[in-house]
Amino acid sequence: MFKEALQEVVDGTEGAFAALLMGYDGIPLEQYVREDRPMNVENLGIEYTMVLKSVMNAARNLGSGSTNEVAIRAERLTTVIRLLNDEFFLAVALSPNGNSGKARYLMRVRAGSLREALE
Amino acid sequence: MFKEALQEVVDGTEGAFAALLMGYDGIPLEQYVREDRPMNVENLGIEYTMVLKSVMNAARNLGSGSTNEVAIRAERLTTVIRLLNDEFFLAVALSPNGNSGKARYLMRVRAGSLREALE
Repeated sequence: MFKEALQEVVDGTEGAFAALLMGYDGIPLEQYVREDRPMNVENLGIEYTMVLKSVMNAARNLGSGSTNEVAIRAERLTTVIRLLNDEFFLAVALSPNGNSGKARYLMRVRAGSLREALE
Repeated sequence: MFKEALQEVVDGTEGAFAALLMGYDGIPLEQYVREDRPMNVENLGIEYTMVLKSVMNAARNLGSGSTNEVAIRAERLTTVIRLLNDEFFLAVALSPNGNSGKARYLMRVRAGSLREALE
Protein backbone atom coordinates (compact mmCIF):
# COMPACT_ATOMS: atom_id res chain seq x y z
CA MET A 1 0.00 0.00 0.00
CA PHE A 2 2.93 2.37 0.60
CA LYS A 3 4.15 2.17 -2.98
CA GLU A 4 0.67 2.84 -4.34
CA ALA A 5 0.27 5.91 -2.11
CA LEU A 6 3.62 7.31 -3.22
CA GLN A 7 2.82 6.66 -6.87
CA GLU A 8 -0.61 8.33 -6.53
CA VAL A 9 0.97 11.47 -5.12
CA VAL A 10 3.67 11.64 -7.82
CA ASP A 11 1.41 10.76 -10.76
CA GLY A 12 -1.30 13.12 -9.50
CA THR A 13 1.02 16.11 -9.23
CA GLU A 14 2.15 18.08 -12.27
CA GLY A 15 5.94 18.31 -12.19
CA ALA A 16 6.50 15.73 -9.43
CA PHE A 17 8.99 13.00 -10.22
CA ALA A 18 9.75 11.05 -7.03
CA ALA A 19 8.39 10.29 -3.57
CA LEU A 20 9.97 8.68 -0.55
CA LEU A 21 8.77 7.31 2.76
CA MET A 22 11.68 7.38 5.19
CA GLY A 23 12.51 7.19 8.89
CA TYR A 24 14.20 10.13 10.61
CA ASP A 25 17.15 7.77 11.02
CA GLY A 26 17.61 7.97 7.22
CA ILE A 27 16.43 4.42 6.54
CA PRO A 28 14.03 4.33 3.56
CA LEU A 29 10.81 2.35 3.86
CA GLU A 30 9.48 2.81 0.33
CA GLN A 31 10.10 4.95 -2.70
CA TYR A 32 8.63 5.65 -6.11
CA VAL A 33 10.55 7.32 -8.92
CA ARG A 34 9.09 8.14 -12.33
CA GLU A 35 10.87 6.10 -14.99
CA ASP A 36 11.33 9.08 -17.30
CA ARG A 37 12.98 11.13 -14.58
CA PRO A 38 15.39 8.90 -12.63
CA MET A 39 16.94 10.29 -9.47
CA ASN A 40 18.54 9.07 -6.27
CA VAL A 41 15.67 9.85 -3.96
CA GLU A 42 17.36 8.14 -1.01
CA ASN A 43 20.18 10.69 -1.04
CA LEU A 44 17.57 13.42 -1.02
CA GLY A 45 15.88 11.86 2.00
CA ILE A 46 19.12 11.40 3.89
CA GLU A 47 20.08 15.05 3.35
CA TYR A 48 16.66 16.18 4.50
CA THR A 49 16.66 14.06 7.68
CA MET A 50 19.30 16.52 8.94
CA VAL A 51 17.08 19.44 7.97
CA LEU A 52 14.04 17.91 9.68
CA LYS A 53 15.99 17.36 12.88
CA SER A 54 16.92 21.05 12.99
CA VAL A 55 13.32 22.02 12.15
CA MET A 56 11.94 19.86 14.98
CA ASN A 57 14.55 21.26 17.34
CA ALA A 58 13.54 24.83 16.40
CA ALA A 59 9.84 24.01 16.87
CA ARG A 60 10.58 22.60 20.32
CA ASN A 61 12.56 25.69 21.35
CA LEU A 62 9.91 28.04 19.96
CA GLY A 63 6.98 26.13 21.48
CA SER A 64 5.22 26.21 18.13
CA GLY A 65 3.79 22.68 18.42
CA SER A 66 4.52 19.68 16.27
CA THR A 67 5.77 20.33 12.75
CA ASN A 68 3.41 19.18 10.00
CA GLU A 69 5.09 20.21 6.79
CA VAL A 70 8.29 21.64 5.35
CA ALA A 71 8.69 22.93 1.78
CA ILE A 72 12.06 23.83 0.30
CA ARG A 73 12.39 25.58 -3.04
CA ALA A 74 15.84 25.52 -4.62
CA GLU A 75 16.86 26.63 -8.10
CA ARG A 76 16.50 23.18 -9.67
CA LEU A 77 14.40 21.27 -7.15
CA THR A 78 11.35 21.78 -4.97
CA THR A 79 10.85 19.35 -2.09
CA VAL A 80 7.69 19.07 -0.02
CA ILE A 81 7.94 17.02 3.17
CA ARG A 82 5.03 15.85 5.33
CA LEU A 83 5.98 14.68 8.81
CA LEU A 84 3.76 11.67 9.48
CA ASN A 85 4.59 10.67 13.05
CA ASP A 86 7.56 10.44 15.42
CA GLU A 87 9.33 8.00 13.14
CA PHE A 88 8.52 8.60 9.49
CA PHE A 89 8.18 11.36 6.93
CA LEU A 90 6.94 11.51 3.35
CA ALA A 91 8.92 13.58 0.83
CA VAL A 92 8.00 14.50 -2.74
CA ALA A 93 10.48 15.95 -5.25
CA LEU A 94 9.18 18.31 -7.94
CA SER A 95 10.61 20.45 -10.68
CA PRO A 96 10.73 24.15 -9.69
CA ASN A 97 7.58 24.93 -11.68
CA GLY A 98 5.74 21.83 -10.41
CA ASN A 99 2.40 22.14 -8.64
CA SER A 100 3.55 22.02 -5.02
CA GLY A 101 0.06 22.96 -3.81
CA LYS A 102 -1.31 19.78 -5.38
CA ALA A 103 1.51 17.72 -3.85
CA ARG A 104 0.75 19.22 -0.42
CA TYR A 105 -2.95 18.45 -0.84
CA LEU A 106 -2.39 14.84 -1.95
CA MET A 107 0.11 14.23 0.85
CA ARG A 108 -2.26 15.68 3.44
CA VAL A 109 -5.24 13.57 2.39
CA ARG A 110 -3.11 10.40 2.40
CA ALA A 111 -1.33 11.16 5.67
CA GLY A 112 -4.03 9.59 7.87
CA SER A 113 -4.08 6.20 6.17
CA LEU A 114 -0.27 6.13 5.88
CA ARG A 115 -0.01 6.91 9.59
CA GLU A 116 -2.44 4.09 10.43
CA ALA A 117 -0.53 1.62 8.27
CA LEU A 118 2.74 2.62 9.95
CA GLU A 119 1.52 1.84 13.47
CA MET B 1 13.11 51.31 3.75
CA PHE B 2 13.57 47.89 5.36
CA LYS B 3 10.94 48.52 8.02
CA GLU B 4 8.42 49.67 5.40
CA ALA B 5 9.00 46.55 3.30
CA LEU B 6 8.53 44.27 6.30
CA GLN B 7 5.38 46.11 7.34
CA GLU B 8 3.96 45.93 3.81
CA VAL B 9 4.42 42.16 3.73
CA VAL B 10 2.86 41.66 7.17
CA ASP B 11 -0.04 44.09 6.73
CA GLY B 12 -0.72 42.77 3.22
CA THR B 13 -0.96 39.14 4.33
CA GLU B 14 -4.01 37.76 6.09
CA GLY B 15 -2.87 36.03 9.28
CA ALA B 16 0.73 37.36 9.25
CA PHE B 17 1.90 38.97 12.46
CA ALA B 18 5.65 39.55 12.26
CA ALA B 19 8.53 39.85 9.80
CA LEU B 20 12.26 39.85 10.28
CA LEU B 21 15.30 40.67 8.18
CA MET B 22 18.27 38.82 9.64
CA GLY B 23 21.79 37.69 8.81
CA TYR B 24 22.65 33.98 8.77
CA ASP B 25 24.85 34.79 11.77
CA GLY B 26 21.65 35.42 13.76
CA ILE B 27 22.09 39.19 13.94
CA PRO B 28 18.80 41.00 13.16
CA LEU B 29 18.85 43.93 10.76
CA GLU B 30 15.20 45.00 11.01
CA GLN B 31 11.92 43.66 12.29
CA TYR B 32 8.25 44.51 12.30
CA VAL B 33 5.76 43.00 14.74
CA ARG B 34 2.02 43.75 14.73
CA GLU B 35 1.10 45.55 17.94
CA ASP B 36 -1.94 43.37 18.56
CA ARG B 37 0.10 40.19 18.28
CA PRO B 38 3.42 40.68 20.11
CA MET B 39 6.08 38.01 19.72
CA ASN B 40 9.83 37.62 20.05
CA VAL B 41 10.62 37.46 16.36
CA GLU B 42 14.37 37.54 17.01
CA ASN B 43 14.22 34.18 18.79
CA LEU B 44 12.33 32.81 15.82
CA GLY B 45 15.04 34.05 13.47
CA ILE B 46 17.87 32.67 15.57
CA GLU B 47 16.23 29.23 15.68
CA TYR B 48 15.75 29.28 11.92
CA THR B 49 19.31 30.31 11.12
CA MET B 50 20.24 26.78 12.21
CA VAL B 51 17.56 25.33 9.94
CA LEU B 52 18.71 27.45 6.99
CA LYS B 53 22.28 26.31 7.45
CA SER B 54 21.20 22.67 7.24
CA VAL B 55 18.97 23.47 4.22
CA MET B 56 21.85 25.16 2.38
CA ASN B 57 24.13 22.29 3.26
CA ALA B 58 21.60 19.79 1.85
CA ALA B 59 21.18 21.86 -1.33
CA ARG B 60 24.95 21.90 -1.81
CA ASN B 61 25.23 18.13 -1.33
CA LEU B 62 22.29 17.47 -3.66
CA GLY B 63 23.45 19.92 -6.32
CA SER B 64 19.96 21.43 -6.43
CA GLY B 65 21.19 25.01 -6.87
CA SER B 66 20.76 27.92 -4.53
CA THR B 67 17.84 27.79 -2.10
CA ASN B 68 15.18 30.45 -2.67
CA GLU B 69 12.54 29.73 -0.10
CA VAL B 70 11.70 27.57 2.91
CA ALA B 71 8.24 27.20 4.45
CA ILE B 72 7.64 25.46 7.77
CA ARG B 73 4.17 24.68 9.03
CA ALA B 74 3.87 23.78 12.71
CA GLU B 75 0.75 23.30 14.77
CA ARG B 76 0.65 26.89 16.04
CA LEU B 77 2.94 28.75 13.64
CA THR B 78 3.68 28.94 9.93
CA THR B 79 6.98 30.51 8.91
CA VAL B 80 7.90 31.48 5.36
CA ILE B 81 11.54 32.35 4.74
CA ARG B 82 12.97 33.96 1.61
CA LEU B 83 16.74 33.71 1.24
CA LEU B 84 17.83 37.07 -0.17
CA ASN B 85 21.57 36.68 -0.72
CA ASP B 86 24.62 35.07 0.89
CA GLU B 87 24.18 37.13 4.03
CA PHE B 88 20.53 37.87 4.75
CA PHE B 89 17.11 36.26 4.83
CA LEU B 90 13.58 37.55 5.25
CA ALA B 91 11.19 35.60 7.49
CA VAL B 92 7.46 36.08 7.99
CA ALA B 93 5.47 34.50 10.84
CA LEU B 94 1.81 33.62 10.24
CA SER B 95 -0.97 31.91 12.10
CA PRO B 96 -1.55 28.34 10.81
CA ASN B 97 -4.55 29.43 8.75
CA GLY B 98 -2.79 32.54 7.42
CA ASN B 99 -2.40 33.14 3.70
CA SER B 100 1.14 31.84 3.16
CA GLY B 101 0.72 32.08 -0.61
CA LYS B 102 0.19 35.83 -0.30
CA ALA B 103 3.20 36.13 2.02
CA ARG B 104 5.33 34.22 -0.51
CA TYR B 105 4.15 36.47 -3.33
CA LEU B 106 4.78 39.72 -1.42
CA MET B 107 8.22 38.53 -0.30
CA ARG B 108 9.14 37.52 -3.84
CA VAL B 109 8.15 40.84 -5.41
CA ARG B 110 10.09 42.78 -2.75
CA ALA B 111 13.16 40.54 -2.82
CA GLY B 112 14.84 42.42 -5.68
CA SER B 113 14.72 45.86 -4.08
CA LEU B 114 15.68 44.50 -0.67
CA ARG B 115 18.64 42.73 -2.24
CA GLU B 116 19.75 45.94 -3.96
CA ALA B 117 19.45 47.92 -0.73
CA LEU B 118 21.52 45.31 1.10
CA GLU B 119 24.48 45.54 -1.26
